[in-house]
Amino acid sequence: AAAAQAFADGTKDYKPLRSSKYDIKKPHITEFPITWGNWYKHVNWLNTTFIIFIPLIGLISTYWVPLQFKTALFAVFYYFNAGLGITAGYHRLWAHSSYKASLPIKIYLAAMGAAAVEGSIRWWSRDHRAHHRYTDTEKDPYSVRKGLLYSHIGWMVMKQNPKRIGRTDISDLNDDPVVVWQHTHFIKSVLTMALIVPTFICGFGWGDWVGGFVYAGILRICFVQQATFCVNSLAHWLGDQPFDDRNSPRDHVITALVTLGEGYHNFHHEFPSDYRNAIEWWQYDPTKWSIWTWKKMGLAYDLKQFRQNEIEKGRLQQLQKKLDQKRTKLDWGVPLEQLPVIDWDDYVAEAKSGRGLVAVAGVIHDVTDFIKEHPGGKALISSAIGKDATAIFNGGVYEHSNAAHNLLSTMRVGVLRGGCEVEIWKRSHMDNKEGAFVTD
Amino acid sequence: AAAAQAFADGTKDYKPLRSSKYDIKKPHITEFPITWGNWYKHVNWLNTTFIIFIPLIGLISTYWVPLQFKTALFAVFYYFNAGLGITAGYHRLWAHSSYKASLPIKIYLAAMGAAAVEGSIRWWSRDHRAHHRYTDTEKDPYSVRKGLLYSHIGWMVMKQNPKRIGRTDISDLNDDPVVVWQHTHFIKSVLTMALIVPTFICGFGWGDWVGGFVYAGILRICFVQQATFCVNSLAHWLGDQPFDDRNSPRDHVITALVTLGEGYHNFHHEFPSDYRNAIEWWQYDPTKWSIWTWKKMGLAYDLKQFRQNEIEKGRLQQLQKKLDQKRTKLDWGVPLEQLPVIDWDDYVAEAKSGRGLVAVAGVIHDVTDFIKEHPGGKALISSAIGKDATAIFNGGVYEHSNAAHNLLSTMRVGVLRGGCEVEIWKRSHMDNKEGAFVTD
Ligand code: HEM
Ligand code: HEM
Ligand SMILES: [Fe+2]
Ligand SMILES: [Fe+2]
Ligand SMILES: [Fe+2]
Ligand SMILES: [Fe+2]
Repeated sequence: AAAAQAFADGTKDYKPLRSSKYDIKKPHITEFPITWGNWYKHVNWLNTTFIIFIPLIGLISTYWVPLQFKTALFAVFYYFNAGLGITAGYHRLWAHSSYKASLPIKIYLAAMGAAAVEGSIRWWSRDHRAHHRYTDTEKDPYSVRKGLLYSHIGWMVMKQNPKRIGRTDISDLNDDPVVVWQHTHFIKSVLTMALIVPTFICGFGWGDWVGGFVYAGILRICFVQQATFCVNSLAHWLGDQPFDDRNSPRDHVITALVTLGEGYHNFHHEFPSDYRNAIEWWQYDPTKWSIWTWKKMGLAYDLKQFRQNEIEKGRLQQLQKKLDQKRTKLDWGVPLEQLPVIDWDDYVAEAKSGRGLVAVAGVIHDVTDFIKEHPGGKALISSAIGKDATAIFNGGVYEHSNAAHNLLSTMRVGVLRGGCEVEIWKRSHMDNKEGAFVTD
Repeated sequence: AAAAQAFADGTKDYKPLRSSKYDIKKPHITEFPITWGNWYKHVNWLNTTFIIFIPLIGLISTYWVPLQFKTALFAVFYYFNAGLGITAGYHRLWAHSSYKASLPIKIYLAAMGAAAVEGSIRWWSRDHRAHHRYTDTEKDPYSVRKGLLYSHIGWMVMKQNPKRIGRTDISDLNDDPVVVWQHTHFIKSVLTMALIVPTFICGFGWGDWVGGFVYAGILRICFVQQATFCVNSLAHWLGDQPFDDRNSPRDHVITALVTLGEGYHNFHHEFPSDYRNAIEWWQYDPTKWSIWTWKKMGLAYDLKQFRQNEIEKGRLQQLQKKLDQKRTKLDWGVPLEQLPVIDWDDYVAEAKSGRGLVAVAGVIHDVTDFIKEHPGGKALISSAIGKDATAIFNGGVYEHSNAAHNLLSTMRVGVLRGGCEVEIWKRSHMDNKEGAFVTD
């Protein structure tokens, strides 16, 4: 592995293993604004060729190349394998170390990942770790805050300043021979796995050399790319946030269907070291199913799972947060501590003078406008005016529903001194005109 | 209206207007247990004839009576009208006074309600008010606590002790001429609306006298009955409880589909005076749509709606209740007040002796078993052992997710005296061996 400057937190500046052209000290093109004169220097032409021009050429060429049924079938099969190379390999195995894989599985995933043409494991994982560590910030390589298109494809089409992207620790990847081999032989690997192998299989298999190249090669690459790019765009844009809504990741079944199960992205960002993205058995996560199958076959092990207790806590806290937000938007009546304190005799006098005041549980309510609407009838509610209706309201005559209690609290106008008609206090008050309190 | 003994709360014992046979002072048959010798006295043979025998005869006779398309169409149409008589008439208009209707609408609803053969408005509404006021108790005429079958049909097939059923105030119904007329002429009304009218329409209309009698009459009655009975059975048994789970009422779209929209029964029991049962526009509540249409046509008015604020409060409180129940089932770590208080020096000494202790925000955590699992790597977490990691944990090196904070709290083992390494206190402690505290 190349020696790079080490930082106190164990991270290093990213240094490509292959090229020596790149000089970290020179000002990077992204430090200059885009103008009519320099825009072509801002474009990453290599990436653009791979993810836009070649697919376009492939698309156009389909006009002359008939699609054979066997080739179509194989292209779909190869599409799923290449997808799995990214999701089960690049993403869950290498970027997140959410499980350990035996050498055959590693080689299979590295090879199929190359067939997806999305960069080397080493480059992809390092960006992805930065994406998790600095989600939605300036240091996030594909921050959705810069726009949906940017997060989908813009970040590859335009050159990126490597210094902008958050630093991460990839020492474990530098120690993995499969990762290092794939990185140093990346172009060879891509040409072989993405184009030569599918062309040869369709060619030697059923004589469809051109179809194999166009459909199982070029167009299949394009579909895998667009699908997996959705994890960076769609998964940060469409769906629910059951675990955390401070950042952009979201859960949606559509994203999951497109991305071999990577669509439960709110969960994934909250529990990135979990080998699952979907935690319910009925959710679509074929990547999880594959890893699980490999485990059963003895080809994968140490599948990491966050404790269910922590997952439920996260879900609960997020629900609580939403409830609390909603609670502040509703009318719960004047808080008790803001209400005037009223003496029993004043309450009775005011009720007698015609105001529809009812005392329940030490609180005085103005029900004047509600009397005619009362579902239990005018007579009953009127009979409580100027009295302590605590008992009759709470079951003495009718055990009111929660809704009635809620409604009542919106009618609060005062608090009773002493909480009720304090007989002892009243009598002592009359006996001792000096106003001494009986404390017995 | 008949004079009945009045109680303090405005309710009266139920007294039928028609028959004088019933003597409230004699012991009622339901006060004797069911035996082989008296079971037939427990059965309400009139009801059983109407809701079981006649439908059975109708069903059998279909073997000889061909179903004509026009008759089928009309039977369905008449079915919906009779259903509306019960849901928009008996239930929402008279039992709950959730809106006011003009005379034509009242007559239409009373007539169609008779066509459903479910008793008079007066009898039905009185039982229904008791059902709401005493839901799930002994006083509930069709309490689901006595079994699903009982709440569906058993309460009609078996005689009921009128004294058992909770008393309610029906003075408003006794003042309504339509209600009183329908009650006193109930048998006539039923025969006319349930059998004669549909038979005549099919007979004079397209010559299908027998089909009209069997399909649009008898079988249609049976379907309306079974459908509306579902409000008492299915609606208290199947579905969610978004507003209150202390009682049995539940919301379910299936019940709504069967009962012309009465399936949002948890809402309905919480807000019975609301003319709606479904509050979302996309929910199925044709009864609500009808009432709303009559209002637009000037035929109904004073449609009562509970304040949205109160509805949201109810929903929120129920969600909160569920969350609180779930919260108690999760592991939130040892409560702080149950943890031992540990001095900074003891903490450092214990960490040095090999235990993986990390202090974050004044709390000491034992991360020994977690070090090798730490998603941020062994090195980083190890570097915090025996130190105050508050700042590095909270963003200094990495801003940990909510999940990480939750996990951390399950590892609590102690509380730091003073909350952190109190430098001033330490120094003063060394200077003044007497141990005086510096208070500034
Ligand atoms: C003081 C303010 C009051 C408020 C805000 C209030 C509110 C309500 C509400 C919203 C209902 C509808 C059903 C429900 O949600 O449970 C109701 C029903 C009822 N209320 Fe009240 N009420 C008040 C006072 C009283 C008093 C003082 C009495 C009796 C003396 C009373 C007796 C009843 C009865 C009997 C019903 C049942 C109606 C039925 O469904 O048969 N209410 N009340
Ligand atoms: C003291 C107990 C600690 C616990 C329970 C803990 C827990 C976790 C968890 C659950 C994650 C996974 C990602 C996430 O949920 O955000 C994580 C990631 C991380 N932790 Fe910790 N941590 C601890 C201490 C530390 C310390 C002391 C440091 C640094 C000195 C640190 C640095 C990191 C870093 C850099 C990551 C990010 C890994 C990545 O996604 O690139 N952690 N930690
Ligand atoms: Fe993401
Ligand atoms: Fe990820
Ligand atoms: Fe009910
Ligand atoms: Fe009702």
